[in-house]
Amino acid sequence: MTYELYYWDGIQGRGEFVRLALEEAAADYIDITRQSGRGHGTGAMLAIMKSDSEAQLPFAPPFLKDGDLIISHVANILLYLGPKLGLAPDEEGLRYVANGLQLTVTDFVAEVHDTHHPIATSLYYEDQKEEAKARSAAFIKERIPKFLGYFERVLKQNPAGPGHIVGDTLTYVDLSLFQIIEGLVYAFPKAMSNYRRRYPLLAALHDSVEQRPNIARYLKSDRRLAFNTEGIFRHYPELDTDVS
Amino acid sequence: MTYELYYWDGIQGRGEFVRLALEEAAADYIDITRQSGRGHGTGAMLAIMKSDSEAQLPFAPPFLKDGDLIISHVANILLYLGPKLGLAPDEEGLRYVANGLQLTVTDFVAEVHDTHHPIATSLYYEDQKEEAKARSAAFIKERIPKFLGYFERVLKQNPAGPGHIVGDTLTYVDLSLFQIIEGLVYAFPKAMSNYRRRYPLLAALHDSVEQRPNIARYLKSDRRLAFNTEGIFRHYPELDTDVS
Repeated sequence: MTYELYYWDGIQGRGEFVRLALEEAAADYIDITRQSGRGHGTGAMLAIMKSDSEAQLPFAPPFLKDGDLIISHVANILLYLGPKLGLAPDEEGLRYVANGLQLTVTDFVAEVHDTHHPIATSLYYEDQKEEAKARSAAFIKERIPKFLGYFERVLKQNPAGPGHIVGDTLTYVDLSLFQIIEGLVYAFPKAMSNYRRRYPLLAALHDSVEQRPNIARYLKSDRRLAFNTEGIFRHYPELDTDVS
Repeated sequence: MTYELYYWDGIQGRGEFVRLALEEAAADYIDITRQSGRGHGTGAMLAIMKSDSEAQLPFAPPFLKDGDLIISHVANILLYLGPKLGLAPDEEGLRYVANGLQLTVTDFVAEVHDTHHPIATSLYYEDQKEEAKARSAAFIKERIPKFLGYFERVLKQNPAGPGHIVGDTLTYVDLSLFQIIEGLVYAFPKAMSNYRRRYPLLAALHDSVEQRPNIARYLKSDRRLAFNTEGIFRHYPELDTDVS
């Protein structure tokens, strides 16, 4: 069965965490809104979201359709796909540990979004720029070190070694951490300039993911969109400050 | 085995979503930070969080300890406990639907928090009050209707009937929706004044949960702390506005 991924066209956004897992596993999937024709395109996604009869109504994209099942939220999609794609720990207990780590990624991504939209998602960035500067300053000073420092500690304390965030094999959480680093380096190049020194294990994990053949191939393909200022990670130079 | 719940003492906060499930099921659990003695109290919680050897390091409370397993994040704890407490759907597919709904609750709770802390968690409310007013106005005008309207639609479109948010039995998501309504009515009484008319199915679900014997007994007990301005849901009259 072909997985159907539904997400906004034109951005990496939250959908990218799912794409990386599907691409690493060379899974059979369709990025529905990037295709045209009947049952494809953004219209097909909105039809599900606006349906007045759908029982498994998603609150927001991304969501995944696998046959009759609709699964929404990134962490939930990865929880579901992980074992099927060989990207989850074998041990059941560790699957909850992986899910907990992914939910920390989720929280971090929400905070990244709010650096440029601290007041209202409905307002333009330009209309909340001053508040965005204040929020970004706190994000760079306090939140990046808190989250990246946490993941660095988890890598260091992994009893199976620091090569993976949980267990001794690649999981979807490793792929998500790669994307977190990619996104932060794009959005906050000054703030992230010394990240390799501060978070060496995370940097090594990032590089090892980047070099995996399926990921390397994906990153070079036209399926990987460039970062831009419509997504979650946005580069606004006025929000990026050096950390001393 | 007794479940050990770790959460900040003195507030309902995010821990309350877990407590409601444990209480409804009359599960054997200890609220660790509200007890004293060896292995109890806030010190016991911080010892786990600050450990330099713990393999399953939580990012933040709440977390649950079940034997050797540490599970963090509310939705993850409920995913784990749900089947054990008889509070998850029997059908596996619906468990992912339940988890997706709970993750929407999670996102909403994060937005509730940011109404009083839109710039930085590290700053006092008083130091971001003007921004909090702007964010709360947008929250009341746009986000409460978006989230509660979504849950109302899901109830209406539940093929098993509108008595539960998923399937035909009580799940932990129903309990969490009760808590969402309780918290919003406490924090934003003006904005929520007409919620029964606008979201009748949610109101009915709230009332049915409130009347369950184990929940009713819990709400009257001293284990249920009062809402206060230290938790997630805070009542600051200046942030609460009428919806017309």
